[in-house]
Amino acid sequence: MLNHSYSVPKLNKEMGQQVSRYIDTLTKPLGSLGRLEELAISLAAMKGEAFPSVTPPGVLVFAADHGITDEGVSAYPQEVTEQMVRNFLNGGAGINVFSRQIGALLEIIDIGVTSTIKDERLIDKKVRFGTANFYQENAMTRKEAEDALEVGYQQGLEIINKGAKCLILGEMGIGNTTASSAILAVLSKAQIASLVGHGTGIADDAFEHKIEVIKQALVKRNPNPQDPVDIMAKVGGLEIAGMTGAMLAAASQRVPILVDGFICTVAALLAKEISQAASNYMIVTHQSAEPGHQVAISLLGNKPLIDLGLRLGEGTGATIAYPIIQSATLMVKEMATFNTAGVLNKQ
Amino acid sequence: MLNHSYSVPKLNKEMGQQVSRYIDTLTKPLGSLGRLEELAISLAAMKGEAFPSVTPPGVLVFAADHGITDEGVSAYPQEVTEQMVRNFLNGGAGINVFSRQIGALLEIIDIGVTSTIKDERLIDKKVRFGTANFYQENAMTRKEAEDALEVGYQQGLEIINKGAKCLILGEMGIGNTTASSAILAVLSKAQIASLVGHGTGIADDAFEHKIEVIKQALVKRNPNPQDPVDIMAKVGGLEIAGMTGAMLAAASQRVPILVDGFICTVAALLAKEISQAASNYMIVTHQSAEPGHQVAISLLGNKPLIDLGLRLGEGTGATIAYPIIQSATLMVKEMATFNTAGVLNKQ
Repeated sequence: MLNHSYSVPKLNKEMGQQVSRYIDTLTKPLGSLGRLEELAISLAAMKGEAFPSVTPPGVLVFAADHGITDEGVSAYPQEVTEQMVRNFLNGGAGINVFSRQIGALLEIIDIGVTSTIKDERLIDKKVRFGTANFYQENAMTRKEAEDALEVGYQQGLEIINKGAKCLILGEMGIGNTTASSAILAVLSKAQIASLVGHGTGIADDAFEHKIEVIKQALVKRNPNPQDPVDIMAKVGGLEIAGMTGAMLAAASQRVPILVDGFICTVAALLAKEISQAASNYMIVTHQSAEPGHQVAISLLGNKPLIDLGLRLGEGTGATIAYPIIQSATLMVKEMATFNTAGVLNKQ
Repeated sequence: MLNHSYSVPKLNKEMGQQVSRYIDTLTKPLGSLGRLEELAISLAAMKGEAFPSVTPPGVLVFAADHGITDEGVSAYPQEVTEQMVRNFLNGGAGINVFSRQIGALLEIIDIGVTSTIKDERLIDKKVRFGTANFYQENAMTRKEAEDALEVGYQQGLEIINKGAKCLILGEMGIGNTTASSAILAVLSKAQIASLVGHGTGIADDAFEHKIEVIKQALVKRNPNPQDPVDIMAKVGGLEIAGMTGAMLAAASQRVPILVDGFICTVAALLAKEISQAASNYMIVTHQSAEPGHQVAISLLGNKPLIDLGLRLGEGTGATIAYPIIQSATLMVKEMATFNTAGVLNKQ
C-alpha cells in the first residue's frame, strides 16, 4: 500500500469552455493561434481560472545512480552522475542555463547518488546509495520505491509552496535510459528493441547488448504490470520514482506539469498508473530523439509541442518549450477583444 | 534599377566550424541539443562571432492596404487594417503581447494604409494610400515598389542602430494573403490552388473565387518572374515590399532574420531574388497553417523550427519561436565544458 492516496482533483471543464469562448472574442482571426489556444483552454481547465499564470516555473532535478551500469549499458561511467550534480550546483549544465533564461526556481535533489555529496546547495534526500543491478536482483525494495515516491511528492509540494506555478521535472542518472526502457516495456508490452535508444551515445554492439540485458532482466524480475510500485522497485530508478511523486504532487494542487523527454515521460506514465487523473495535468513539451519516447507519449495520450531532436534530459526540453506555454497564458490575459479595441469582426 | 545594390556579406563559415567544435566540449552528450546546436552554429556564421547575442530582438510591423479587396477575397473589411494599426499602437494585439514577453523593440510603420492615421507612436512612411486593385491594373508603379523597398531598408537599418540584435518582420494588411499567393505563384510556378488558403477565414465559395481572381489577374498583369520589383509592382503589396527591404538591411548588417509565416516568407523569397545571399541570414521560425507556406519555405531552402498551427501573421509566430533561438545562444555562452566542470567525457 502507498503511504497515501495521491488523489487528484477533476479538471474544471466549464472554465475551459468559458475561456474557449473568450478566446474567440480576441483581436485575431478565429483559431489563428492554433495550439496556443488549445493550451490556454487546457490550462484554464487545470487551474480552474480564466487567466492562470505559469510564472515562475519550478524545476526539480532528481539525481540517482543505477546498478545496471555494471552491465556496460551506458556510454559514460557512473561517477558522471556525481560530477554532473556538482555541475548543476555550480550553474554550468544545460538545465541551469535554460532555467535562468525562463526565471525558474531550480532545485537539485540527491535521491540516490552512490557517493556522498556535501554541499549546502544540494537537497539531500538520499533513499539509498544507488539502485542494485536489476539484471541480478531487484533495483530496490518496495519500501524504498515508496519512499522515493514520497520524497518526490514532498519536494513537489514544497516548490509549489515556494510559488512555482507549473512544474518541470528533470533527472540525472547514468544508466537511466535502460531503467526507463525496462519500465516502458512492462507498461506498453511493445517490443523491447523499439523502446531502446543509444542513450547518451553508446556504440552499436553495446546497443544490442543493452537490449539483451533488458530482455533477460525482465524475465528474471517479472514485474507486475498492474502494480506501478512493483515495477519501480524491480527495474526502476530512484530519480524516476521521485519524478513520479513530484508529478502526483503537482496534479493534486492543480499545477500544470511540463513533461520533458523519454525518462520523464516514463515517470509520467507511472504517475498515471497510480492516479489516472494525473495525466490531465500534463503537457508533453517535446518529442525527443530517443526512440521509445513516441511510444510513451502515445500511451500517455498526449501530443508534443515541439520537435527539435533534443535528447539531453535534465528537464532541458521542457524549459526550452516553456515560453510557448507562457505565450498561451499571456495571449488570454493581455490581448484586446474586438469590442474593446473597436475592431470590426468578420463580415 | 534599384536605388542601390543591397549587397550582403558572406557567411563566416570558419567561425561556424569553430563553434561546432566548441559545442562538442560542453557538458552534454554529443549532439544531444539537436536543432539548438545547428542554430548556434548558423548564428555564429551569420554574426562572425563565437558567442553572438540575439537580445534584444527588433520587431517591425508594416501596415498597408490592398485594392484587391474590392474583389471580395477577404473575410474582413478593409478598414480593419487601420483599426488593427490602432490596436497595435494601444498594445492590445497579439504581436504586442508576444513582443513584450520577449523584451523586443517594436515599431509600427504605416507604409500604405488607405486612411490617414494621426498618432505620434506610428512611424508614418506612407508610399501611397493602399495599392490599386491588381485584378484591374498594376498594384503600384515600379517607382513606388522601389520606394517601399527602400522604406523597409531604412527602417531595418534604424532599428538595428537602436540595438536590435535580430530582426522579426510582421505585417498587417487585409487582402495580403491574396497578394502573397499571387507573388508565390509567379516565383514557384506551382498550381495556384495549392498556394491559396482561407486567409483570415473566408468561406468555401469565396475561397474558389479567390483562386479564380488570382489566376485571371496573373494572366492580365503578367509579371516577369526574373524581376522581383516587377512582381511587387504588378501584384504585390506595400507592406510586403517593406518587409523585403528590411530583410535586405538585416542581411547587409549580418543580423539574423527570424522569418514568420506565409506572407513574411514570400517577402523573404523576394529578398532572396534581389540578393541571393540574403537567405543565408534567415531562420524560418514556424510552419504556418496557410497552405502555400510549405511551398515558400522549400523554395527558400529552409526548415521551420516549430509547427503550432499558427496563422495570425503580424510577426507573431517568429516572436513565439524567438526564445528557442535565444536558448541556442545561451547554450554556447553559458554552459560549462567537460574540462572546466571536471566531468569525465565518454568512456
